[in-house]
Amino acid sequence: MDKLPKCPANYVPLTPLTFIKRASTVYSNRTSVIYSGVRFTWRQTYERCCRLAYSLRSLNVVKNDVVSVLAPNVPALYEMHFAVPMAGAVLNAINTRLDAKNIATILRHSEAKVFFVDYEYVTIASEALRLLVASFNDSSSAQLAMPLVIVIDDVSKPTGVRLGKLEYEQLIHYGNPRYPGEDVEDEWDSIALNYTSGTTSDPKGVVYSHRGAFLSTMSLIQGWEMGTEAVYLWSLPMFHCNGWTFTWGVAARGGTNVCIRNTTAVEMYKGISQHKVTHMCCAPIVFNILLEAKPHERCEIKSKVNILTGGAPPPAALLEKMEDLGFHIMHAYGLTEATGPALVCEWQTKWNQLPKDQQARLKARQGVGILTLADVDVKDKDTMESVPHDGTTMGEIVLRGSSIMKGYLKDEKETAKAFKNGWFFTGDVGVIHPDGYLEIKDRSKDVIISGGENISSVELESILFEHPAILEAAVVAMPHPRWGESPCAFVVLKETARSATESEILSYCRKKMSKFMIPKKVEFVKELPKTGTGKPQKVLLRKVAKTLQITQTELGNNKRSEKEIHMDRTRYHRDELHEQENVLAMSRL
Amino acid sequence: MDKLPKCPANYVPLTPLTFIKRASTVYSNRTSVIYSGVRFTWRQTYERCCRLAYSLRSLNVVKNDVVSVLAPNVPALYEMHFAVPMAGAVLNAINTRLDAKNIATILRHSEAKVFFVDYEYVTIASEALRLLVASFNDSSSAQLAMPLVIVIDDVSKPTGVRLGKLEYEQLIHYGNPRYPGEDVEDEWDSIALNYTSGTTSDPKGVVYSHRGAFLSTMSLIQGWEMGTEAVYLWSLPMFHCNGWTFTWGVAARGGTNVCIRNTTAVEMYKGISQHKVTHMCCAPIVFNILLEAKPHERCEIKSKVNILTGGAPPPAALLEKMEDLGFHIMHAYGLTEATGPALVCEWQTKWNQLPKDQQARLKARQGVGILTLADVDVKDKDTMESVPHDGTTMGEIVLRGSSIMKGYLKDEKETAKAFKNGWFFTGDVGVIHPDGYLEIKDRSKDVIISGGENISSVELESILFEHPAILEAAVVAMPHPRWGESPCAFVVLKETARSATESEILSYCRKKMSKFMIPKKVEFVKELPKTGTGKPQKVLLRKVAKTLQITQTELGNNKRSEKEIHMDRTRYHRDELHEQENVLAMSRL
Repeated sequence: MDKLPKCPANYVPLTPLTFIKRASTVYSNRTSVIYSGVRFTWRQTYERCCRLAYSLRSLNVVKNDVVSVLAPNVPALYEMHFAVPMAGAVLNAINTRLDAKNIATILRHSEAKVFFVDYEYVTIASEALRLLVASFNDSSSAQLAMPLVIVIDDVSKPTGVRLGKLEYEQLIHYGNPRYPGEDVEDEWDSIALNYTSGTTSDPKGVVYSHRGAFLSTMSLIQGWEMGTEAVYLWSLPMFHCNGWTFTWGVAARGGTNVCIRNTTAVEMYKGISQHKVTHMCCAPIVFNILLEAKPHERCEIKSKVNILTGGAPPPAALLEKMEDLGFHIMHAYGLTEATGPALVCEWQTKWNQLPKDQQARLKARQGVGILTLADVDVKDKDTMESVPHDGTTMGEIVLRGSSIMKGYLKDEKETAKAFKNGWFFTGDVGVIHPDGYLEIKDRSKDVIISGGENISSVELESILFEHPAILEAAVVAMPHPRWGESPCAFVVLKETARSATESEILSYCRKKMSKFMIPKKVEFVKELPKTGTGKPQKVLLRKVAKTLQITQTELGNNKRSEKEIHMDRTRYHRDELHEQENVLAMSRL
Repeated sequence: MDKLPKCPANYVPLTPLTFIKRASTVYSNRTSVIYSGVRFTWRQTYERCCRLAYSLRSLNVVKNDVVSVLAPNVPALYEMHFAVPMAGAVLNAINTRLDAKNIATILRHSEAKVFFVDYEYVTIASEALRLLVASFNDSSSAQLAMPLVIVIDDVSKPTGVRLGKLEYEQLIHYGNPRYPGEDVEDEWDSIALNYTSGTTSDPKGVVYSHRGAFLSTMSLIQGWEMGTEAVYLWSLPMFHCNGWTFTWGVAARGGTNVCIRNTTAVEMYKGISQHKVTHMCCAPIVFNILLEAKPHERCEIKSKVNILTGGAPPPAALLEKMEDLGFHIMHAYGLTEATGPALVCEWQTKWNQLPKDQQARLKARQGVGILTLADVDVKDKDTMESVPHDGTTMGEIVLRGSSIMKGYLKDEKETAKAFKNGWFFTGDVGVIHPDGYLEIKDRSKDVIISGGENISSVELESILFEHPAILEAAVVAMPHPRWGESPCAFVVLKETARSATESEILSYCRKKMSKFMIPKKVEFVKELPKTGTGKPQKVLLRKVAKTLQITQTELGNNKRSEKEIHMDRTRYHRDELHEQENVLAMSRL
């Protein structure tokens, strides 16, 4: 039995790259990508990937080099999911809602060799590059090098906007459509690098292997039962865990990618109706966009649209309204570290008989582990004992399996903290119900989930601490009517600076952090309640935060005319959504 | 990137054993197995597997030991698919239609340590064991040991039939339901051993790894789009490529296994109707059983039943009749060496618009590679050039990927022959159509596919050669109204034995080979047409065979009364089906 060796015919490294090659052959003339006025077939998409991979090699990109990209859900970002690993490199899709400082930090930490920038993000990218140069000047290391910048112009309606000399379509044009890509020598090789703020202040670079990406993709198209000929709407940013692996998954099923630049009601309804969308992923906040759309923004939805959603459990009423509109919702739970969703709430036919509110309660649970996870459990963190399946005993959610990340880039300490006793610790607290379905009961205490995006309280606190007037600060979640949760900062001012105001602090925050991280309320206190070991008692602060009102400027001025309000709503959708709702965090979905 | 090591949390060997453990947790109270009066839940099935695995360890079964089993589709055989590898051992499910000699050969070659025998097969098993002892006596090797025999009595209605002291339920009874099973240390470890006659006369032992079995299972439930809560009818023997991996696949989806002892019309219709079967696999010969069933043998089919079928492409008329009955058919192509189906004919919605005969033509193609195959191609065997996708240029079908077997047990020569230039050579000849779908145009010339079962002409010839009257023999396929193909033997008699008759030869065959292998026609010729290198010109012989009539005794006596004919038909179904139709070969489906 043991004398039968592996050979190239029976042992081929697992990689999502097989999906695009296969798609180019067996789905060659099917539509792969639709974006505005542009349409590609799978053969064309594959050839574009081959060309891009070839050009990247020509630009000296080699194995394990990081290729960063800052772009919305345009065809280029989709193609890069295949082309970059085909060149042997590692794709780093950056959250487009981050500020220049965070982007610079990522470019520096990842040592990005190439930096693709969508034309809409040229300004922020320039600023990030300026900060990167500055950081290099401060540094004594000789190893540092600036990334080669390549702009991605709009493929449908070119704008001419540039940042440096190179443009994406040039690389496509001069590439070789017959380039087969570099061989994946080892399925443990890295394919992607995704940064998550997680629970600490420094961004952590989560590294995926080809094996992990392949297996996650396989089990997610399975868990969601996404069939062949799926039409997938890109309402979830591809930079979130590589679009929860569906970047690769749509190729696996020979489906069609409907790419949209913004998750506005108009773009989504149009896409769904025009292209007969069958599948989409999003945070529950997107439900509001769809439900609150004005009649003229809507189109008729003729076929059932399957939605995979994560994050805060959608309330029963919201679920019901969505189902009435023609959407079928499946709830999932995941983390960047688990390559996206790790559990999905598999629906059971017998539940159809139950009252709607009970159905919603069942549907809002996080569910059962996907097939490629070796194990999911809820354990007492200290004893490592599994909790009984009683729906009440809480413990930490732990995962094991080949779809879990390789680790955090250049961060042995955090990697070691995440992997203990043969398990990955999620930091989330849950229960297991008697039917084996898992439900999250509490989140890792430091994380604030706002509009689907993870906000690290530790990170916010460390920025607040740097303000000259602030002595102490503790940030916790407070309820927000739109975003679910928002950061609320409890601040103790220095004796010498008792005159500082909320708006001063907020304007300081605006300069120092990404927009969605800015606290929606700053509460001044004389002292922070502390635990025995001197840490702020956040449990208590959260209770207080629940009783507070969000700062009025945040909710807008109700005295304006109807027209103004509508304009505000539009701007709200444009800017805020663009800023925040579009950002569907996968580190805790 | 390269400094992130594998650890038990993020690198877990792939194995189908995770499916049953997961099922026991997340589908714990769902029905796992239905057989006659017996019903189990997934928790019960898992616990029975734990118990059996524990008992096997108690009986000194250790890693890489072979556990053979001769049984129809009863719950025990299903459970052994998990319990045997849980004990670290390798499952060898033997084709129940083989004769005692073939069974003895397999027991000897595999060095089976334990031999489970269904009560119905006690007689043939005893004979096989007797032959095994005899072969040991002829041998000088001291390594040989008889397997421990354990009978499997009927779990629903125990018969008391025994072969030795041990019975299956005893092992279950005395086992430990909390035994977690041995850890799979390496996903390359062996999980199953399946014998195929292939194209040579010696049975070849195809070895599967845990990795290969896991990946095949994943991609087949995917390719067939088998969702959660599937109800799977066991019309395909589990001993064929482990039921085309659906033994493991049904556990992965938390479905229900409907086990039946015989694929008679009554058992199948009853199962389908009573348990609302959604999925079943079978050779096209089973279509005839379903279509030819008498009214009193039928039950109403209320829901759509998905059939995955392989082997000879079903004719358009047959497909149409089946669809009218409520069956939805998908065509597949595979080999034992590819862990079952390697290609499936994915249906395309646009084909629904085409005329029925055109649909049938499209459906009868072998289709596209499953997702875990790294590559499928049709190549010129000599130049290794890929054929153009023109639907006419023929070449050999070659496969690559981690779902291909580890190799042939103790047969380096055949293993080396199968794996060349990084590909597995199927020995089948096909074309690729412009839409990327593959179609088999000719079979590896030596194989006869009768009622879905592979028959090696080389094997038959070598037996015929041993007959004292025979000088030369060449066996080719001839058309058969029921079995599709049947063996036709062209025989040159020795000068000294010109008086030998067809019935003498046939009765010799009956003693020497399994029933389904017996030629349906013996044609005496003066000399065999030969090729330049002295090999029989089988292309020519096949043309002659097409013009011949099957020996009359084979078709029955038409002069008998109506009642007698009906009885004959019943016997035909009972015996012949039992003997042959039940046997759905997977070495070339």
